[in-house]
Amino acid sequence: MPHIHVDKNLPGIRSLLAFSPETAAAMGMLTNLLLRSNDGLSMADRELIAAHVSYLNDCFYCHQSHGEIAVCYLNGNRELVNQVKEDYNNAPVTNKLKSLLSIAASVQQGGKCVTPQQVEMAKALGATDKDIHDTVLIAAAFCMFNRYVDGLAANTPTDLSTYPPRAKQVAEHGYGNHVFAADQPV
Amino acid sequence: MPHIHVDKNLPGIRSLLAFSPETAAAMGMLTNLLLRSNDGLSMADRELIAAHVSYLNDCFYCHQSHGEIAVCYLNGNRELVNQVKEDYNNAPVTNKLKSLLSIAASVQQGGKCVTPQQVEMAKALGATDKDIHDTVLIAAAFCMFNRYVDGLAANTPTDLSTYPPRAKQVAEHGYGNHVFAADQPV
Repeated sequence: MPHIHVDKNLPGIRSLLAFSPETAAAMGMLTNLLLRSNDGLSMADRELIAAHVSYLNDCFYCHQSHGEIAVCYLNGNRELVNQVKEDYNNAPVTNKLKSLLSIAASVQQGGKCVTPQQVEMAKALGATDKDIHDTVLIAAAFCMFNRYVDGLAANTPTDLSTYPPRAKQVAEHGYGNHVFAADQPV
Repeated sequence: MPHIHVDKNLPGIRSLLAFSPETAAAMGMLTNLLLRSNDGLSMADRELIAAHVSYLNDCFYCHQSHGEIAVCYLNGNRELVNQVKEDYNNAPVTNKLKSLLSIAASVQQGGKCVTPQQVEMAKALGATDKDIHDTVLIAAAFCMFNRYVDGLAANTPTDLSTYPPRAKQVAEHGYGNHVFAADQPV
């Protein structure tokens, strides 16, 4: 049960965004900038980083939601997404993306866990300063979103079939104010 | 040395905000909403929560910066601010604020660390749903900011005298685009 009174018809972070629409607008803006861009990292890469960090933070709602959005960008390849979440080192993704996922995993533990060697490796594999910046900020932002959702014990649907319809909507239209509508899918 | 090429004349998060002005605008908006409000929690309470979480995350730049802003709101009482950062249970603050700092400290560890008992205690001591929401989101947001700063190894001034001038500026004018100007104090 959520720690505060929120709309029971809204799942996960959406109930919190509706509770506090002003902060929701700022967070929606940040999320769109970080996840809805193909400048350097692809939208699929960005969602995979978000899903992996959420998985490490054990935030079911977030890793399920962002995993499903990644599935949309990856032609339905849910197996790949699950492998990246759980064990990216053995997933069929580029070494560059693996090096960035490694940085994201360090950020999840704490900012100081990122080593110069990890950054050098990512650069050697083709990562730009912007790729590294975006990876760190996506990972850091999901350390916020995951704590927001679980710190207030937001409702988390356990029926996995409720996530793909909402993921499709985000993949098509991005993050935005439409998340507040109770008549939308998860 | 920072992991990416940023303006050497800008300290801490300000060098990263200048590197990425679009995400900076969204984060500035969020910071103003969370910290520049006396709706429920005072601006001093909010900065104390931010400073305590940053202290727990061992982010020197952030706990020093936000601690100094709290000092501005608390008539220069730096001793109180340092006590809250290091050992709030024995600091001369209200039991309500202690109960919220306890929730913030749990969020720092992970969202699921917040217990219904902590929330009940805060409510019994007068915390509203909005107070609890804001506490969790401030704590979660600083888990992002701290990781952003240290995850990219942003420059952290060690000269403590450089923090109060910037703190005074924020206390007077809030967070905003002026953070990008290299000729501003820390």
